Amino acid sequence: MRTERDVNPDPSALASRFAAVRALSAALVAPLSDADATIQSMDDASPAKWHLAHTTWFFETFVLRDHVPGYRVQDDRFPFLFNSYYEAEGQRHARPRRGMLSRPSLDEIMGYRATVNAALLGALPDLPADARDLVALGCHHEEQHQELLLTDILHHFSVNPLQPAMWQGAPKVPVAMPGPVEWIEGRTGLVEVGHDESSKRENTRIESSESTGDTIDAAGSGFAFDCEGPRHAALLHPHALADRTVTNGEWAAFIADGGYAEPRHWLSDGWAWVQAQGIVAPLYWERSEGGWSRFGLDGRRPVDPAAPVAHVSFFEADAYAGWAGARLPTEFEWEAAASGHDSNGGNQLDAAGAVEPRPSSGGPAFFGDVWEWTGSAFRPYPGFRAAEGAVGEYNGKFMSGQFVLRGGSCATPRGHVRASYRNFFYPHQRWQFTGVRLAKDL
Amino acid sequence: MRTERDVNPDPSALASRFAAVRALSAALVAPLSDADATIQSMDDASPAKWHLAHTTWFFETFVLRDHVPGYRVQDDRFPFLFNSYYEAEGQRHARPRRGMLSRPSLDEIMGYRATVNAALLGALPDLPADARDLVALGCHHEEQHQELLLTDILHHFSVNPLQPAMWQGAPKVPVAMPGPVEWIEGRTGLVEVGHDESSKRENTRIESSESTGDTIDAAGSGFAFDCEGPRHAALLHPHALADRTVTNGEWAAFIADGGYAEPRHWLSDGWAWVQAQGIVAPLYWERSEGGWSRFGLDGRRPVDPAAPVAHVSFFEADAYAGWAGARLPTEFEWEAAASGHDSNGGNQLDAAGAVEPRPSSGGPAFFGDVWEWTGSAFRPYPGFRAAEGAVGEYNGKFMSGQFVLRGGSCATPRGHVRASYRNFFYPHQRWQFTGVRLAKDL
Amino acid sequence: MRTERDVNPDPSALASRFAAVRALSAALVAPLSDADATIQSMDDASPAKWHLAHTTWFFETFVLRDHVPGYRVQDDRFPFLFNSYYEAEGQRHARPRRGMLSRPSLDEIMGYRATVNAALLGALPDLPADARDLVALGCHHEEQHQELLLTDILHHFSVNPLQPAMWQGAPKVPVAMPGPVEWIEGRTGLVEVGHDESSKRENTRIESSESTGDTIDAAGSGFAFDCEGPRHAALLHPHALADRTVTNGEWAAFIADGGYAEPRHWLSDGWAWVQAQGIVAPLYWERSEGGWSRFGLDGRRPVDPAAPVAHVSFFEADAYAGWAGARLPTEFEWEAAASGHDSNGGNQLDAAGAVEPRPSSGGPAFFGDVWEWTGSAFRPYPGFRAAEGAVGEYNGKFMSGQFVLRGGSCATPRGHVRASYRNFFYPHQRWQFTGVRLAKDL
Amino acid sequence: MRTERDVNPDPSALASRFAAVRALSAALVAPLSDADATIQSMDDASPAKWHLAHTTWFFETFVLRDHVPGYRVQDDRFPFLFNSYYEAEGQRHARPRRGMLSRPSLDEIMGYRATVNAALLGALPDLPADARDLVALGCHHEEQHQELLLTDILHHFSVNPLQPAMWQGAPKVPVAMPGPVEWIEGRTGLVEVGHDESSKRENTRIESSESTGDTIDAAGSGFAFDCEGPRHAALLHPHALADRTVTNGEWAAFIADGGYAEPRHWLSDGWAWVQAQGIVAPLYWERSEGGWSRFGLDGRRPVDPAAPVAHVSFFEADAYAGWAGARLPTEFEWEAAASGHDSNGGNQLDAAGAVEPRPSSGGPAFFGDVWEWTGSAFRPYPGFRAAEGAVGEYNGKFMSGQFVLRGGSCATPRGHVRASYRNFFYPHQRWQFTGVRLAKDL
Repeated sequence: MRTERDVNPDPSALASRFAAVRALSAALVAPLSDADATIQSMDDASPAKWHLAHTTWFFETFVLRDHVPGYRVQDDRFPFLFNSYYEAEGQRHARPRRGMLSRPSLDEIMGYRATVNAALLGALPDLPADARDLVALGCHHEEQHQELLLTDILHHFSVNPLQPAMWQGAPKVPVAMPGPVEWIEGRTGLVEVGHDESSKRENTRIESSESTGDTIDAAGSGFAFDCEGPRHAALLHPHALADRTVTNGEWAAFIADGGYAEPRHWLSDGWAWVQAQGIVAPLYWERSEGGWSRFGLDGRRPVDPAAPVAHVSFFEADAYAGWAGARLPTEFEWEAAASGHDSNGGNQLDAAGAVEPRPSSGGPAFFGDVWEWTGSAFRPYPGFRAAEGAVGEYNGKFMSGQFVLRGGSCATPRGHVRASYRNFFYPHQRWQFTGVRLAKDL
Repeated sequence: MRTERDVNPDPSALASRFAAVRALSAALVAPLSDADATIQSMDDASPAKWHLAHTTWFFETFVLRDHVPGYRVQDDRFPFLFNSYYEAEGQRHARPRRGMLSRPSLDEIMGYRATVNAALLGALPDLPADARDLVALGCHHEEQHQELLLTDILHHFSVNPLQPAMWQGAPKVPVAMPGPVEWIEGRTGLVEVGHDESSKRENTRIESSESTGDTIDAAGSGFAFDCEGPRHAALLHPHALADRTVTNGEWAAFIADGGYAEPRHWLSDGWAWVQAQGIVAPLYWERSEGGWSRFGLDGRRPVDPAAPVAHVSFFEADAYAGWAGARLPTEFEWEAAASGHDSNGGNQLDAAGAVEPRPSSGGPAFFGDVWEWTGSAFRPYPGFRAAEGAVGEYNGKFMSGQFVLRGGSCATPRGHVRASYRNFFYPHQRWQFTGVRLAKDL
Repeated sequence: MRTERDVNPDPSALASRFAAVRALSAALVAPLSDADATIQSMDDASPAKWHLAHTTWFFETFVLRDHVPGYRVQDDRFPFLFNSYYEAEGQRHARPRRGMLSRPSLDEIMGYRATVNAALLGALPDLPADARDLVALGCHHEEQHQELLLTDILHHFSVNPLQPAMWQGAPKVPVAMPGPVEWIEGRTGLVEVGHDESSKRENTRIESSESTGDTIDAAGSGFAFDCEGPRHAALLHPHALADRTVTNGEWAAFIADGGYAEPRHWLSDGWAWVQAQGIVAPLYWERSEGGWSRFGLDGRRPVDPAAPVAHVSFFEADAYAGWAGARLPTEFEWEAAASGHDSNGGNQLDAAGAVEPRPSSGGPAFFGDVWEWTGSAFRPYPGFRAAEGAVGEYNGKFMSGQFVLRGGSCATPRGHVRASYRNFFYPHQRWQFTGVRLAKDL
Repeated sequence: MRTERDVNPDPSALASRFAAVRALSAALVAPLSDADATIQSMDDASPAKWHLAHTTWFFETFVLRDHVPGYRVQDDRFPFLFNSYYEAEGQRHARPRRGMLSRPSLDEIMGYRATVNAALLGALPDLPADARDLVALGCHHEEQHQELLLTDILHHFSVNPLQPAMWQGAPKVPVAMPGPVEWIEGRTGLVEVGHDESSKRENTRIESSESTGDTIDAAGSGFAFDCEGPRHAALLHPHALADRTVTNGEWAAFIADGGYAEPRHWLSDGWAWVQAQGIVAPLYWERSEGGWSRFGLDGRRPVDPAAPVAHVSFFEADAYAGWAGARLPTEFEWEAAASGHDSNGGNQLDAAGAVEPRPSSGGPAFFGDVWEWTGSAFRPYPGFRAAEGAVGEYNGKFMSGQFVLRGGSCATPRGHVRASYRNFFYPHQRWQFTGVRLAKDL
């Protein structure tokens, strides 16, 4: 993690922020029963209860236990149950067994949350700056779990033959189909990318005329995760990006053209995955006599051809791009293009209520709706070093085998994402709201 | 299944019986939350909710739908969800996915039960005899699921690191250790075994002086499952049976003698299982500084050396017997010995509340406490034929790879078991209350 | 194992027998290259080289090492490589890794055989009776491996897309289709079964008028494996057996009638196996435009409708029997019926050369062509006790999960089998020459 | 693939090259028996016979069949058997079943090679330039398989408990331990990397003062694989590289320090791999009382502490680097540093005979001994496009999940590798001669 050392959040602003984040989590699970919140539908997912407790454990452990003298852990069995992957924090319950915990109940976990909330808000005014940084980190951490909570419950409901809806969706207003993609020529040459976590550290000595006079993002302020830095120069080759992401209608054309049956389009590992899993469409799509439908947090509904395609894997994204005569953007092409845009705009998560990708309302947009697969492997930036201690395990140890996604989705809490934000998943994973923007060489 | 065709249960007695069975199921799940009732902790087990719904589906399908004109199925999605293994009844939810169903909720399933209860009790006076037979079968069927419900919830709670107890156990009264086994010489020669489902069918033409004058059981009356018949002559060789089952204390001696580490004692498949699974003790046993403890429906407690060992597999039972210089009884040796005893006696399930095997109070006992592994493969009796239709799938199709157990357990509803009763499990399974009685050749 | 203690084989006869058995093994592998003899095509099978070496290790270990003073093991690495499953003989090479041994070469193993042959023949005149019994056992043991060698090489060649033939088959002479099955009524009541290994031990005190005056087999002389005894009384219920095994033509009718697609015919485990493995016909059958062909040691050829069906599993045999309105015989029904027939007759292995099941030439026959699945689980006879020491692991430890087959096959060395002979395999296995004889209740 | 279009190899030079490559393959397998050449010891490896046949199929298919009028394929079953992964070339034998082919024999495959050799040499003078490019490609392709053949046979012999040696090694001459690593400061800023396959295509419009005047490699001539281009500018950040690779002695210190037991050093996927596989040392290392030994093509011998460590995975390499306070180089840092060095120097494969990594003789060396893991994911260069047709599957479709290795090994045919050469393997793979060079940020 990387905390906003140069920011020193004001305690009362931090308290408001903390309270708001914690309240959103509670609001998100309001439609869920104890049983709904208990099930783990696949190894990659976690029960809603677990998300609620794990985020609480994070605050309790790294803030209250470590920084509040005399604080006593609520339940000494919880660290074993609710540690996610912090090896330095000791043994923990096996990830694929998270769905075996009917106890503690949802009520008990909400009680645990309330107790920790009160303790933390009480302690906050007197916390040292380092600990306040950890509170801020915990808020960003909880926002990540809010998105996972939604995608995990979506998966869980999808495997129930009753196909329950979490929320009723809004009435569908017919929308005009977006026109053909427009290609936006990207910047070429050296650009500065990544988040400048601190002015104290010169993480690069490279100077380039392209990058010095022209800061492409307000990259030096605010919070960022450790993997977003150090800020550094990167070299862009001539290229263009599509002005919008691929739509469901375009994806249906790929399917109709035999895209899933033609090995030529696919990476070797992707083709093996398609064959082994019998993949023929995005996750949650089903074909019936009436055409394609998809499952969402508002239940099963017809696929909207105008909306961005979601729930596709990197393998599918890459195959589609090849079929379309294009390629995926690199993460730095994307960052350079996106950095002039409002990262708080677009279709992101504001409150509890049906979330789904929506048709574009026109104009290039880079944030919200769907995470966009890039062609960049998730690897450390030049000069990257993980933090000391348990929180150092936050991102660095995942830097093999995964690909970077950018831009946030309809399930990302608004305010969470930024141009330098790096999300990452394995190339076969697709239960997140993941989509595709095309790029091409010029 | 085999229904008591010569019995023609009286409708009002049947109604009482039905109501009592259904009420016991409800009482058993009273301590469970919706989440408790939702989890499936392994493929062999099912969620409590599923047991409650499946037994209801059984009545609804085979009685109400098939025999009550105008009856309309409560929810046409339930047959898919709650059919267990009846191929003739069509597609069904995959067994290992039974734990993915947070919906319908426990409340909804209790409502489904209430509706079906009312419909069935209303229809019962006018049901034809065949349908009344199916009601009786459904009651016996539900009793089987009551035992499974308890053993499944025991397993589920055992994998929760919090080790919750379903019920508080009774205070432990110290009991004298049972003395050494006494050997009871068994009958030799031809005996009649199995249940005489009907006087109409002569299932054997074998006459033997041993068996004709001396009916070893009141085998011709009452209900039995199809696999218990036809009644037929069997040949017993000279042998003796132990007067009680093996105790935890004796089992601890087997462990201490290296019983789990010596391949010589084990069947080849058993040894492979021990090695692959790292088996070193009965299921639910754990060793700590204070000695062995076991997990039960009353939580984790010290192992009682005087109580019968439970939760051992056939492989373990067979290895123990070899180590002890003995063998397992055949199912007919057991049946011949047990048939003079009261099948309603001993430690069986009477009501909701902590159940566990208890030390013997003296005198040979064959029923209750633990199911006893026999050395007999579960195969059809001479002249066996499965019933027509879906209920014909009840037992016959499971007649490969499994071994017969006899006698009932502390979790078997009292009145359910009888001398001819054949339970059956695979040789590695041990989450039931399964124990061992020794036998030897004379 | 059980050796012919009351026989005390004459040393020179034993030497001839030993030489003949050893020579047949060598003749069988004559068509094989070193590479042919090295491959292990599945876990259940072993390389031909391994069979050649393992049978030699058996003689070297249990006779030469244990009974010939001063004998020095040829290569102290061979016991690790060529012990099959004798836990008492220590660590051994993992069974599924037997195909990783290009060294020692086939030539080296033939050299190992020659050395052990010479040593054993030299030592034989002076061997004590116990050791001579072990030589006799080793000959029977090697005959078992001769059959396995053939079925294993058949499987190995079957997975090679080139489908090589081991031997050229004889020209096919058209044969009249066998007529409909004739039913032979079996004996009823008590019969004596099993092999009488010794007159010294009274293994049963049961007397019955049926069995005393009428010995159904010359069961008291000659060699038998331990699992064939003790000889004991068994009770037969009224039944009849088919006078021949099921033909390929009859099996094709089962297929054509949808036999593999109808769960009603199948045991539950069998149906799961059919579904998981995509089973639609006997092993080695393939359907092309010209109809069904099968792969044999003479390569791929059309299925002969008049010949006995082979390479079917117990699950298939049981399903076929149910479809045909019959059942499988018990092993004792089979033994009682077969005991009056010449166990050396029929189509058995005489010499190297193409072997395959052949159409019946008329008259009831019980030996040769195909092993016949019985409905009897492979379990110990009353009074069975395994021998002390490593050879005690010969059969007893396999007495769970397997079914008994009777009668020998076209790949069984003539003279090896007898009425009391019990072969056994798991219910899904079918790479042996395994077929079906129907039985029915009377 | 990328052929030397601007080179137009002279037919007679190409014939000599072809003959030499083909002869080396034959020489490499001279010590192998048919059985040795048949075994496949793991899915990742292939039998020696298969390498010999597959490389021949490559020439036969893409040159003779496609470019020589009237050529008739030797055996129409071979394409199915010996196609590796070219989807466009149709169905093929399953990769994990390559070890099931005792037929065709090694002799038959050597005959197949001879026939194709003769046909190709006969046709070569008249081949069009495109086809000559394919001959050249086939030679490079066969060189890759020569290295795989050696590493695959090494693995195969390693799993044989007899631990056979392929060749006798040279007598060991004691060598002084290399001194501490010296750090070589690398170039900073823009550099040109990759192979310039053609002057006809401007693959980048980026100009930088660093790269224009100062070509870092003779990158515009000779053969290269498609994934090595297009040549393009890359940006290097301040860094230094070790002057040599990590030694066995240094690795032993990592082990002794608990390197394999401390999750802090490991990537998350790497730690999971270490735990699941029980990894405690490089592949082929074993610890006995006398210390560490390793298995090589010269059998099992003591580990030489002065020699480069080999047979480590990316996960191990990365963990070691973290433990050592360093990191892995990027592929462009490596390429920039190596481009001034002689790619034909160092310990590479010259002829059949024992190969193993050897202690450094001093001075920075970048080629030979061991492939060096880089921290760069194997992804396409800017402007990369796979060739049309089947040979387009050569590299591009493997561009996910793998990491780049550079520099060649002791088993790489001398002349095969160059500064721009990109080898690639999955991060857990380690049966190649794979080692580690450290890098650090400045």
